[in-house]
Amino acid sequence: MEAYFDNSASTKVIGCVMDVVVKTMTEDYANASAKHSKGAAAERYIREARSIIAGTLKVKEKEILFTSGGSESNNMALIGTALANRRAGMHIITSGIEHASVYNTLGFLSEQGFDVTYLPVDGQGHISLEQLRESIRPDTILVSIMYVNNEVGAVEPVEEIARVIHEVNPNTLFHVDAIQAYGKYEIRPKRQGIDLLSVSGHKLHAPKGVGFLYIDERVKIKPLIYGGGQQRGLRSGTENVPGVAGLGAAAAEAYRDHKEKIDYLYGLKDRMMTRLGELEGVHLNTQPGRESAPQIVSASFEGVRSEVLLHALEEKGIYVSSGSACSSNHPGVSSALKGIGVKPELLDATLRFSFSVLNTPEEIDYAIEALKELLPVLRRYKRG
Amino acid sequence: MEAYFDNSASTKVIGCVMDVVVKTMTEDYANASAKHSKGAAAERYIREARSIIAGTLKVKEKEILFTSGGSESNNMALIGTALANRRAGMHIITSGIEHASVYNTLGFLSEQGFDVTYLPVDGQGHISLEQLRESIRPDTILVSIMYVNNEVGAVEPVEEIARVIHEVNPNTLFHVDAIQAYGKYEIRPKRQGIDLLSVSGHKLHAPKGVGFLYIDERVKIKPLIYGGGQQRGLRSGTENVPGVAGLGAAAAEAYRDHKEKIDYLYGLKDRMMTRLGELEGVHLNTQPGRESAPQIVSASFEGVRSEVLLHALEEKGIYVSSGSACSSNHPGVSSALKGIGVKPELLDATLRFSFSVLNTPEEIDYAIEALKELLPVLRRYKRG
Repeated sequence: MEAYFDNSASTKVIGCVMDVVVKTMTEDYANASAKHSKGAAAERYIREARSIIAGTLKVKEKEILFTSGGSESNNMALIGTALANRRAGMHIITSGIEHASVYNTLGFLSEQGFDVTYLPVDGQGHISLEQLRESIRPDTILVSIMYVNNEVGAVEPVEEIARVIHEVNPNTLFHVDAIQAYGKYEIRPKRQGIDLLSVSGHKLHAPKGVGFLYIDERVKIKPLIYGGGQQRGLRSGTENVPGVAGLGAAAAEAYRDHKEKIDYLYGLKDRMMTRLGELEGVHLNTQPGRESAPQIVSASFEGVRSEVLLHALEEKGIYVSSGSACSSNHPGVSSALKGIGVKPELLDATLRFSFSVLNTPEEIDYAIEALKELLPVLRRYKRG
Repeated sequence: MEAYFDNSASTKVIGCVMDVVVKTMTEDYANASAKHSKGAAAERYIREARSIIAGTLKVKEKEILFTSGGSESNNMALIGTALANRRAGMHIITSGIEHASVYNTLGFLSEQGFDVTYLPVDGQGHISLEQLRESIRPDTILVSIMYVNNEVGAVEPVEEIARVIHEVNPNTLFHVDAIQAYGKYEIRPKRQGIDLLSVSGHKLHAPKGVGFLYIDERVKIKPLIYGGGQQRGLRSGTENVPGVAGLGAAAAEAYRDHKEKIDYLYGLKDRMMTRLGELEGVHLNTQPGRESAPQIVSASFEGVRSEVLLHALEEKGIYVSSGSACSSNHPGVSSALKGIGVKPELLDATLRFSFSVLNTPEEIDYAIEALKELLPVLRRYKRG
């Protein structure tokens, strides 16, 4: 049996997405900017994907900008608004548990003279609305907070954050990294007060190398990439028709029978958390049920090094990630695990199980059986 | 019959490339940074592609940086070196016939205080080495000149340019936009004195949304996109495994039996130019034979508007681009056509025919027959 539980790292491209990817690579392969009918055919895929995606968020089509993925979306949101709004101020607020594509981009902006405030999180991974309120200044141009944390699945109170921001400083923009949230939540930027929203394709069964940034039409932003003036001059470069068309198809699929899919994922998560909870020496870092995201379970295993357990599981066809994978590249960066107060000795004993609708309850049972078998052996080995 | 002669805009993804794209999307779909064996499998595709590409250029593997395409490669080459070397100087030299992804990126750098010199070209589309020599100053940090012009196929004297640059100022970097040249020429950056080289995948039967930038290991460069530290921190973001693997396969294919392929393309070009030359009122803007690139023929048709002719050809299944497509988005930008002295009344009467190895001599004959039939009708119609 195989159990791929690393869907928050990347997902399999599903059939309906592959169909349009293959078609646009081998039949409708023209440049979408070409003036002939083959160019128009390619452009229709872009327009359709834009329409689907705008529909899932209830925003305008022109507010969707396609990028090369989540990292570019986050970089553009931060650098693009910072450069375009620097006359209004140079202060930016974020949390201490953001993804590296937010964290390190803000590092670059710090070098450029921007002042960045990092808000800590509590044991559930949430920022404090009171601390946020106190941090917002007249020169705060941007707040960037993730929707769903990639390490533990914590869900930030996005609407409340937006309300606080806009109460204190109506000119402050609110960027949300929704890379782990899009497809899992019904996101309504207009209603929720989100000005910019980053999404990555390959987290929801679309190809790698494509993503989008929602930009409210009133937001001033500078391009990150200049050139032929594609996408209204905001993101130049030949449109990635297969990627964009694939992302559109994946978005449509993710929000088709959405409630059922999410219930199914919560079923997997609940099963995993319940059964992990029955094992000895296992600490769950993820909030139960609907209090956190449907697809992520983080657990720490006393007396086992995460990398050892990861490879032992891999030999049984079970693929997971080590909880501190992201921060391991960035010594000195407080990971979400540290942020929520996981004990130091458990930081390197943590695994993330992340699900997609392609997973089954049987795979979870299989993983639990494998853990039951492996944990005593590995613990004995470590003590030995 | 169908004749797709718009290969310099985008190409069909070929079978051997599709195979690896499909495999990496549906089987080896893990994140290449994942620590488990599926991650390692994904990473092997990246390594193999990097090895193939480095081999085609005879450079080191670590000197190849994957990007989202030609525009990002050009942006990174220009912005990345400008920001990293601004203390050494703020002067940049380019030609007047560069692609928009160079031209407009330099526009952005001008806003940031950089001083840009634009060199004109002669009737063959070549810059003057004497003018180049006179333009290089002690504070010139970068010269950016394209290898093959996308509108007319002119080939710049890259080696001589490098020699002049390094004679006058050994600290000046030389960037070459090789988006229309890679796969068509045997490029040897080390021997030719090229410090940075931009390439796009979808011009050589790889997918859209991927490209690379060769960066000599001694070049100081800043990232354009920050994040998880992929590609030695120079280009963060989950690696686009299918795109990169596809680009590797396409590069291998392009340089397999390379001489035969190039001879074949020159055969198509010669046939096209000879037969176009036999038609009345047709002016060739492309240098004959080996004096220009193998895949591009630009021709102006007296008394016909290019867009009308483009659509008339399209109805017969012949797909071309209008010669001034790029500049039409950029009023005020001197296109290559203007640069080489095409008469004003012919600027809007120009088509570009661009070939790939998938084209056949029969397609060229078919296009010539179509032109023979269409030109008198369209000319009569225009006069009427």
